[in-house]
Amino acid sequence: MDYKKYIKIVDNWPKEGIQFKDITPLMDNGKAFKAAVDEIVEFAREKDIDLVVGPEARGFIIGCPVSYALESGFAPVRKEGKLPREVIKVDYGLEYGENVLTIHKDAVKPGQRVLITDDLLATGGTIEATIKLVEELGGVVVGCAFLIELSYLNGLEKLDGYDVLTLMKY
Amino acid sequence: MDYKKYIKIVDNWPKEGIQFKDITPLMDNGKAFKAAVDEIVEFAREKDIDLVVGPEARGFIIGCPVSYALESGFAPVRKEGKLPREVIKVDYGLEYGENVLTIHKDAVKPGQRVLITDDLLATGGTIEATIKLVEELGGVVVGCAFLIELSYLNGLEKLDGYDVLTLMKY
Repeated sequence: MDYKKYIKIVDNWPKEGIQFKDITPLMDNGKAFKAAVDEIVEFAREKDIDLVVGPEARGFIIGCPVSYALESGFAPVRKEGKLPREVIKVDYGLEYGENVLTIHKDAVKPGQRVLITDDLLATGGTIEATIKLVEELGGVVVGCAFLIELSYLNGLEKLDGYDVLTLMKY
Repeated sequence: MDYKKYIKIVDNWPKEGIQFKDITPLMDNGKAFKAAVDEIVEFAREKDIDLVVGPEARGFIIGCPVSYALESGFAPVRKEGKLPREVIKVDYGLEYGENVLTIHKDAVKPGQRVLITDDLLATGGTIEATIKLVEELGGVVVGCAFLIELSYLNGLEKLDGYDVLTLMKY
């Protein structure tokens, strides 16, 4: 499927010089959204995963349907102060700004095979941080899946050694 | 299914006196998460819905798998400044604090039959605001579905006239 026709490019958002890739028209279209999720489900099935992990909030949009389809469970990675129980945390650098990500300490069991999902691979900072959290809890990251890769930001370099699926490249 | 055994009660979070209902253990369990989503899918199927709408971030957790299962599409409601294109907005009062919610102007087409999802019905403020946004765009709210209802906060009163499904009551 040509997913790109469902992506709207928004100039200078959230700041000057950024061409934001808006995935909401893709989500708004039932057939396109299902097709995209199903491609990621197929990728995940080959890897026999136990758990999907995704950073808030757009990582939930893909990760939750994938985990539903696989009956695998989903663990959210959230910004500091958003998860109510004991967490581990990691600092990360974003394309614009700095932040902290957290995961519940009991979210991943040692040895679980984990798929990480997000809407977009940009510089890879968010995903690198998410991988660190999963691996610190003893999870095995067997794949990372994205709707979109911004190739010019070289995020793939941070994911060297991991199996990556992206449905669209810019 | 007895979903409550997958809910962890966290005392005094996010502030003193609140008993937070943590749904992450339910999401972490593949079978429990799928069963919960499937109950909402069944509720939605009877209503012949066109679109699922959910407020960030926990509304995505239920709403995205439901929309995937129904091939219906999903439209996110987000806090101010999070959606990149033209939005309409509404002020709302939360159980703790005040805020603004927004939706893309083209997210709902007039006449679309909409299911609204969130993890939790508390005072009903977030859902009331979400309904307002959907109806302002011409959508028809045919149902609201939640994992959890805090009955003692009387949120159902704000949803008078709407068909509501909740899987757990406290």
